[in-house]
Amino acid sequence: MARAHIPSATDIRRAALTIEGHAVKTPLLESPHLNKRLGGRILFKAEPLQITGSFKFRGAFNRLSAIPENERDRGVVAYSSGNHAQGVAAAAKILGTHAIIAMPEDAPAIKIANTRAWGAEIVYYDREKDDRELLCRRLVEDRGATLVRPFDDALIIAGQGTVGLETAQQARAVGVTLDCTLVPCGGGGLAAGTALALASEMPDCRVYAVEPVGFDTTGAAIRAGKRLPLAPHPPSICDALMSPEAGELTFAVNADRLAGGIAVGDDAIKAAMRTAFQELKTVVEPGGAAALAAILEGALDVRGKSVGIILSGGNVDPGMFARVLNDI
Amino acid sequence: MARAHIPSATDIRRAALTIEGHAVKTPLLESPHLNKRLGGRILFKAEPLQITGSFKFRGAFNRLSAIPENERDRGVVAYSSGNHAQGVAAAAKILGTHAIIAMPEDAPAIKIANTRAWGAEIVYYDREKDDRELLCRRLVEDRGATLVRPFDDALIIAGQGTVGLETAQQARAVGVTLDCTLVPCGGGGLAAGTALALASEMPDCRVYAVEPVGFDTTGAAIRAGKRLPLAPHPPSICDALMSPEAGELTFAVNADRLAGGIAVGDDAIKAAMRTAFQELKTVVEPGGAAALAAILEGALDVRGKSVGIILSGGNVDPGMFARVLNDI
Repeated sequence: MARAHIPSATDIRRAALTIEGHAVKTPLLESPHLNKRLGGRILFKAEPLQITGSFKFRGAFNRLSAIPENERDRGVVAYSSGNHAQGVAAAAKILGTHAIIAMPEDAPAIKIANTRAWGAEIVYYDREKDDRELLCRRLVEDRGATLVRPFDDALIIAGQGTVGLETAQQARAVGVTLDCTLVPCGGGGLAAGTALALASEMPDCRVYAVEPVGFDTTGAAIRAGKRLPLAPHPPSICDALMSPEAGELTFAVNADRLAGGIAVGDDAIKAAMRTAFQELKTVVEPGGAAALAAILEGALDVRGKSVGIILSGGNVDPGMFARVLNDI
Repeated sequence: MARAHIPSATDIRRAALTIEGHAVKTPLLESPHLNKRLGGRILFKAEPLQITGSFKFRGAFNRLSAIPENERDRGVVAYSSGNHAQGVAAAAKILGTHAIIAMPEDAPAIKIANTRAWGAEIVYYDREKDDRELLCRRLVEDRGATLVRPFDDALIIAGQGTVGLETAQQARAVGVTLDCTLVPCGGGGLAAGTALALASEMPDCRVYAVEPVGFDTTGAAIRAGKRLPLAPHPPSICDALMSPEAGELTFAVNADRLAGGIAVGDDAIKAAMRTAFQELKTVVEPGGAAALAAILEGALDVRGKSVGIILSGGNVDPGMFARVLNDI
């Protein structure tokens, strides 16, 4: 790995300066009804309101900004089920470089359409049959482009860490010190970045990764003390969180920094999406609702606590969202 | 009318101080895709993210705060299809007084449930048969409570005007001077308040009221130079904007301050709700989407312009939202 060092709090602050004026400083939402229902003070970091509809733009913009000028012309390559794709595509557009994105054929239509709308070139792959890493390595070799990994990269982790940095700053601005923060987790970049930022900003805040049942690679790796291969499991509704394994660098951070992992099922995810619709008026995609699902299920006792919940993205097809609202 | 004076810019600034720490300073959202599609720079004031899910809390809290301590014990009375109801109920709860709300039997279930959740007492009326003003006058007389009008009150207008004040401040913070601002309009309180605030903050900004076809009482009154009775019309999808007439005080302001009125049909409203879902990840109720509907329809040429769009509320039943997403 080219950049195997663990990002520092300074790297995250530097990332915040890099993305300033390009990324949205998303609001921290609060619902008196949810506070009452859960018995704690819950603050929601609303990354669906981020440019491209998810936190992924932060890491992508930070990573692409670090590519030397003379290499930018040859473009960037990424693989993604959709949110990293859009983040990279938007960052490439803004920074004036070309993006080639390998996307699974079954990615949500809204994610494919938006990636294309940002001007990226899309190459499709089969989630079951094709080796996406191999596909990307070939694209990198053929075109001399830079590979932008979805999570296992210090600059990506530092970029995602700005979510944690802003959450801490915005919580302090309303007089809150967070007791714990829950983060949706796929490959672990957002969890790692958030944990690193909060370790510096609010050292007593416990950070938990929340993953879909069957794809809880980070939780399982933390419990086992090492990364494990993913056992076969039917797909989760959380298209953004079906990561085949915890990252090497993200696991190194998360094993050290996280208080634990929580796994949530599809029904809990759907209930969380409905709650976000009703109480927060925010469109949250399945994977983006994982952390909210965990506290609604009571996976963690939040009574009397101040809790940060990261809503990580909102790119969901209207048809699926309608089905979730109708509870089918 | 007890308070028939037209609020000043100072009244709006005073309202901003009164609601500070209780109301949410809602974000100004922006979508690169929508900017590109419409050819202008469009900034969206996201009042669905306000406490109670609409701007109505602002005026209600400002009005209730002005009730003398010795009168607060006797409670407040309001009539509303739902958003003013929730605003008054929440303000009453926070200020420690009792709210009695007259609501039409066909109000959206979510608005009734939320009003009750804020601890208000609900009295139902028939939208066709009952005289809601008479009903409220009786409640006021029987209980010695204070009537909180939905729009025709200087303190209510000043409270809603904080939407315009914040919009101007937040637009300036991103270097934008607004050429025009479009505001969903029922009785005209939000339009009047916003127009008064912008006249002071951004004097060249033209403010338009957007109303449902058949309920464009403010637009018709501006064109006629006087308030007109509403001709019979089938209901609009915009439950929050079916006001039977422009207010006396709101019309006095709007006739003087607005650049005009725009009427939008149900299909345009639904398309706007879908666009807000997709591009802004924000849940917007039918009436709340009226201003967005107007620019999507091309009712105003926004090419090359900087435009403020007020998204005024997000209280919509999940079943209806699902139908709108499915375009049925």
